[in-house]
Amino acid sequence: MKIVKNNVSAPKGFSALGKVVGIKPSGKLDFGVIYSEVIANAAALYTQNQIKGAPLLVTKKHLQNGKAQAIVINSGIANVCTGKKGYRDAQEMAELAALELGIKKTDVAVSSTGLIGAFLPMERMREGMKGIKSQLSKESEIAQAILTIDKAKKEIAVRIDNFTIGAIAKGSGMIHPNMATMLSFITTDAEISSKALRAFLKHSVDLSFNMISVDRDTSTSDMAVILANGLAGKVDAKKFQQGLDFVCMYLAKEIAKDGEGSTRLIKVNVKNAVTENDARKVAKAIISSNLVKCAVFGNDPNWGRILCAIGNSGAHFTEGKIDVYFDEHKLVGDGMAKGFDKATVKEIMKNDELLVTIDLKEGKHEATAYGCDMSLEYVKLSAQYKT
Amino acid sequence: MKIVKNNVSAPKGFSALGKVVGIKPSGKLDFGVIYSEVIANAAALYTQNQIKGAPLLVTKKHLQNGKAQAIVINSGIANVCTGKKGYRDAQEMAELAALELGIKKTDVAVSSTGLIGAFLPMERMREGMKGIKSQLSKESEIAQAILTIDKAKKEIAVRIDNFTIGAIAKGSGMIHPNMATMLSFITTDAEISSKALRAFLKHSVDLSFNMISVDRDTSTSDMAVILANGLAGKVDAKKFQQGLDFVCMYLAKEIAKDGEGSTRLIKVNVKNAVTENDARKVAKAIISSNLVKCAVFGNDPNWGRILCAIGNSGAHFTEGKIDVYFDEHKLVGDGMAKGFDKATVKEIMKNDELLVTIDLKEGKHEATAYGCDMSLEYVKLSAQYKT
Repeated sequence: MKIVKNNVSAPKGFSALGKVVGIKPSGKLDFGVIYSEVIANAAALYTQNQIKGAPLLVTKKHLQNGKAQAIVINSGIANVCTGKKGYRDAQEMAELAALELGIKKTDVAVSSTGLIGAFLPMERMREGMKGIKSQLSKESEIAQAILTIDKAKKEIAVRIDNFTIGAIAKGSGMIHPNMATMLSFITTDAEISSKALRAFLKHSVDLSFNMISVDRDTSTSDMAVILANGLAGKVDAKKFQQGLDFVCMYLAKEIAKDGEGSTRLIKVNVKNAVTENDARKVAKAIISSNLVKCAVFGNDPNWGRILCAIGNSGAHFTEGKIDVYFDEHKLVGDGMAKGFDKATVKEIMKNDELLVTIDLKEGKHEATAYGCDMSLEYVKLSAQYKT
Repeated sequence: MKIVKNNVSAPKGFSALGKVVGIKPSGKLDFGVIYSEVIANAAALYTQNQIKGAPLLVTKKHLQNGKAQAIVINSGIANVCTGKKGYRDAQEMAELAALELGIKKTDVAVSSTGLIGAFLPMERMREGMKGIKSQLSKESEIAQAILTIDKAKKEIAVRIDNFTIGAIAKGSGMIHPNMATMLSFITTDAEISSKALRAFLKHSVDLSFNMISVDRDTSTSDMAVILANGLAGKVDAKKFQQGLDFVCMYLAKEIAKDGEGSTRLIKVNVKNAVTENDARKVAKAIISSNLVKCAVFGNDPNWGRILCAIGNSGAHFTEGKIDVYFDEHKLVGDGMAKGFDKATVKEIMKNDELLVTIDLKEGKHEATAYGCDMSLEYVKLSAQYKT
C-alpha cells in the first residue's frame, strides 16, 4: 500500500473541483463536485438522527439503484429543517449539476453541511454551478471546500496493486459514534458491485467513523458515500477491504484530532471483553465522557472518571478485574489504584496523543475508539458558532 | 405548605451536625451526621452506575429491613474502587457512629462523596467521630459538610398540616438524569411505612433528581435516602407526596443551577408527546446536549441544535409538527424557522433562567427537565479537580 496524492481524484477516471459560490458570508470555499467519467457503483451510510436533512433524503433516493456518477456538496448551510422548499432546493442542486455534467439527475448525490434551518441561496447556487464541467481537474480544492469550522482539511489516497482509493472528510463538532456523523466521500477505480461495496463500507465505517466522538451529538446531515467506477478492473477483495479500512481509520483519527478546540487525540483500546459489542460500549463510554475529556485536557490522570464511565457503559465487566494503562503506565490493577508515578504520567499526558488501554480480563474481544480532550476552546467555539 | 428553617433537623426528633474531621486537604467541613431520637422507617434509591461505592453497598445492606436511625456522611473521598479495605472502612464508619450514638450499626446508613480510588483516613475518622452525640443540634452545618465543589449549599424544610419534611442535597458535576446521581438526605416526622416511603420517594425522584443533567456522567456513589420517624403521627398521603415532590424539585433545581461553572438554569418543558416516556426522552436529550448548553452560554438562539437533539432522543415525533419556544417567543413552527426577532430573544437569554418549551403536537403527555449552560468555567473546574 502506497500513499498517493490528489484525494478523491486519485483513482482513474475521477476529477473534482472546489470553489466559492457565495454561501459562506466569509467568502471562503463552499462548494465542491466529485465526478466520474463513467457511471459508478455506489453505496452510502447515513446519519441515525431521526431528523434528516433534505440533501440526505434526495441522495438516498438517487442511490437506490446502486449507481451514481457525481456528488455535489456545499458547506455553510445544511439545508435541514427547511420543509418542502428545502427538499426542492436539494433536488435542484442535483438537476443543475446533472445538466452541466451531461448526466442523469438521479446519478447525482447531494450533500450539504453547515447551519440548520436556513435556506440555500439558490440564485448563487445556479450562478456558481455554471461551467463546472470545465473546472474539474485532478488537483482540486474540494477537501477544503467541504469544511465548516474544521481546523484542517482531511484527505488521503492510497494505491494497492492495480487499484486506488481516494477520500476526503469533513468533521469537527457533532461527532459522535453513530454512523454517519460526519461527511466522507470516497472514490475508487476498483470494480466492485454496489452490494459488495456497501458491505465493505459498513465494515470500514464500524471500525472508524462509528468509533469516534467529539461531543456526543449526532448530526442531521451526515453521510459516507463511496463510488467505484471499475476502471481498474477486478481487485483482491481482502486487499480492498484493508485499503478502505486504512483510509477510513486515517480520516476518522484526523476528525477526532480536529475536534472543536481539542488539543490532543485520545485513543481508547479495550481488550479482553466478553463480546466485541461490550468492548465497543466501554471504549465509546470513555471517549464520550466530558469529565474524562476535561481531565485529559488538564493533564490529570483521573482514572476514577474512567472507571465511572465504564460503570455507565452498560457492558459486562467485573470491577475487581479492570486494569487501566495510560500508554505503558499501569494506573489501575484489578479495579484499584496501582500507586503509579503521577509526575511521569502527567508528563506523558502532555503528548499529542494519549493511549488509554482497558484490560477487562473477561473474554477475548477488543475495540478501539478515538476522541479528543475538551478544552476551553471547545466551549468558546461552540458558544460562538452563530445561528 | 410553609417553608421552615433547619433543613433535616426541622422534623420532630431529628438533629444533625456538620464538622471537620480532616478528610479534605482544604480543612473545610467534611463530615456530617443525621440522627433521629427514635428508630425510623427508611427508604433509598441508588445510582445506576454498575460500579458502586463501598458506602452504598453497606447502606443497601443496612436498609434492607426498612429501618434506620442515623446517616453518617463524609465529603472529600468517595471510598469507591477501594476493594475489601474500602468496604471494611465503610462498615467501620457505621460501627463508630453506632457506638457513639448508642444504636445498632445496622441502623446506620453510610455515604461518602469525593475522590474515587482513595482510602478514607480512618485514624482521623475515628478521632473525628468521638463525642458526636453531644454535638448534634437543630442548627447544624450539615448542609455545608456534604458538599465537594458545589458553589452553594442546598437545603429546605417545609411544614404541611401536622408534619414536616426536611432535606439537604449535594451535587454539581456528574449530574445526569439517572437515579440517583447526587446525594440527597430527607427526613420527616410523618408516620409512613417503609414500603409506602419508597413509593413516595420514587415518585418524587422521577420528577426531580432524575430530570436534571449537568454533564451526563452518572456517579458511583450517589443516593437519595429518606427517614420517617413517625413522631408527628399519621398524615394525608396526597399532601405528603406533594410536600416531598416540592422538596425534591426545589433541590433538583438548585443542583442544576449549581452545575459546575454554570451561569444559568435551563428548564425544558416538552408538551403533547404520545407518552410520558417520549416527553422525558426529548427533555433529557435537549438538556444533555453539549452543543445546546454552549449555545445558551453564548446567548445564541441556535434552535437547530435543539432539533438535532430531539432527532437523537429516540422519542416518537413528527419533524414537521414541532414548535419551539424560548420563554414566550416562538422560534420554530411546524419544524421550521418562524422568523423571530433575534435581538429580543438574545436579550431574554441573558436572564438567570431560560424556559425552552417544545410542543410536539402528537399526544397529551408532558415532562420537564432541568439543566444548565456549559461555560468556560465548566471546563476549567473539570480539568482542575485534582486526582
